[in-house]
Amino acid sequence: MTSAPSSANPFPGPLPTPMAQPLPAAGPVGIVGLGLIGGSLGLDLQRCGLEVRGLVHRQTTAVRAQQRGLAQRVGTDPALLADCAVVVLALPLDRLLDPDPALLAALPRQAVITDVGSVKQPVLQRWQALHPRFVASHPMAGTAEAGVEAGVEGLFQGRPWVATPTAATDPAALAAVQALAGAVGAHWLCCSAPDHDQAVALISHLPVLVSAALLQAADRAADGELAGLVRALASSGFADTTRVGGGNPELGTLMARCNRGPLLAALASYRQQLEGLERRLQQADWVGLGADLEGCRASRPDFL
Amino acid sequence: MTSAPSSANPFPGPLPTPMAQPLPAAGPVGIVGLGLIGGSLGLDLQRCGLEVRGLVHRQTTAVRAQQRGLAQRVGTDPALLADCAVVVLALPLDRLLDPDPALLAALPRQAVITDVGSVKQPVLQRWQALHPRFVASHPMAGTAEAGVEAGVEGLFQGRPWVATPTAATDPAALAAVQALAGAVGAHWLCCSAPDHDQAVALISHLPVLVSAALLQAADRAADGELAGLVRALASSGFADTTRVGGGNPELGTLMARCNRGPLLAALASYRQQLEGLERRLQQADWVGLGADLEGCRASRPDFL
Repeated sequence: MTSAPSSANPFPGPLPTPMAQPLPAAGPVGIVGLGLIGGSLGLDLQRCGLEVRGLVHRQTTAVRAQQRGLAQRVGTDPALLADCAVVVLALPLDRLLDPDPALLAALPRQAVITDVGSVKQPVLQRWQALHPRFVASHPMAGTAEAGVEAGVEGLFQGRPWVATPTAATDPAALAAVQALAGAVGAHWLCCSAPDHDQAVALISHLPVLVSAALLQAADRAADGELAGLVRALASSGFADTTRVGGGNPELGTLMARCNRGPLLAALASYRQQLEGLERRLQQADWVGLGADLEGCRASRPDFL
Repeated sequence: MTSAPSSANPFPGPLPTPMAQPLPAAGPVGIVGLGLIGGSLGLDLQRCGLEVRGLVHRQTTAVRAQQRGLAQRVGTDPALLADCAVVVLALPLDRLLDPDPALLAALPRQAVITDVGSVKQPVLQRWQALHPRFVASHPMAGTAEAGVEAGVEGLFQGRPWVATPTAATDPAALAAVQALAGAVGAHWLCCSAPDHDQAVALISHLPVLVSAALLQAADRAADGELAGLVRALASSGFADTTRVGGGNPELGTLMARCNRGPLLAALASYRQQLEGLERRLQQADWVGLGADLEGCRASRPDFL
């Protein structure tokens, strides 16, 4: 929904200086997919002095990615990844969970493999069986932009980059991904995959449904003359509360599909809170409602 | 939640030139209450060349309002309103619904009286019996600011100003309020009070509860280690969706109290939509969920 041009630096002030963190990569970094996350990573890692190879699906994308300088070498042939020390799978969740066999065959067995998926449990289950040096991770940076034009420098600066290692995760591979995250200025965090998925269900996927239902209610409850009035009077509060619900439907559906269990749990908890507020109104309990809203005002800054 | 300094012009570019609309006021305009709405109105009406008198509750407020130039004359004695042609009651809803007897006694019988309350049906019921030239109205302009420091020039420019006349409303009084709204650059609209209250329940009061429940769910579903994680990972989507829920609790409670019936109806409609989305997840109906979210993306621009 933000309309910043995709080539603009989303941060005020000068771009952060790439950190001189030692990168254990004894070879190029491969990035599979050069959309918002992959493209941004390509730009930043090159600024760190690394050699970046970009693997994309379509030849037209490869040409454009090369023009934009998202990687030193861009191509559609997975053989491009042959001597990479680290490979970042910057693919949409569905393609990550059902990977192209040609890609799988081309991933070097000694390379560190990581992903950027926004749900971790299913990715971990799939990829731990596919590659011995896989590290599940999630750089939490995003804008509404997508595609080969979306990548920008400085996207990860100050943003969380969460890894969800298990007892089976290779410690050296984990350290390599941490170094990568540090190099682009991200804030490194580790937690379990189930904890990650519960947390993003609450703060990222639940808001989409909460917000979508509000749009639906405003859209459907208002018919006839009221419909025009509702549209004429909606202002910044409505706009803010419905922003994520009016976002990319494919992305919203994919998140829900891949994080179904935690999201259903989050929805149940949400419904319980909403019913509590509704009871305050039904019982005309204005002291209770005031206390609830005061609690909200007090707790919100902790999340910002 | 917006943090613009209260004295700043909230609109980019130069301030709108006050319109040279004929104001039928054959005397000063009185404003009762010089908070965000009253103070802003005082500033704009003076720029239109009108004489403005401000009535406030406390002497300290009067001194500050005079310093800020919110009216040519500010005081705490209702006698100040004696020769006003129009009086704008810019009071909080509770004080509007339970008006000070001294204020009532001081309102000139020939003056046009209007209010700025965000719920219209209860105000209309109360005030139609109190004054023969009462016009119920609602300028829909707001920031998070409140109090004597909040008033700014240009607040109403391009914003809706809704009146809810009835068959009993004096047409000349209605025209006078319309002229006032036009003078400050507002977009004039008329509808019935029940339609107004239903519309604001959907697009203004419901979002507060929807957003508050999300804060509560994130706050309470997350205990132990998850609590820190949820707070660390919350980003702009969560911030936007919870903005109005983390707002002024007194204001939120007052809206709910004064617009209880329409808000309960809006909540019921909202819950139905949310349960529809929840069913999509339970049934793993991703095509249906995608269609729902596509509908949301398509409908949102109509509200902006």
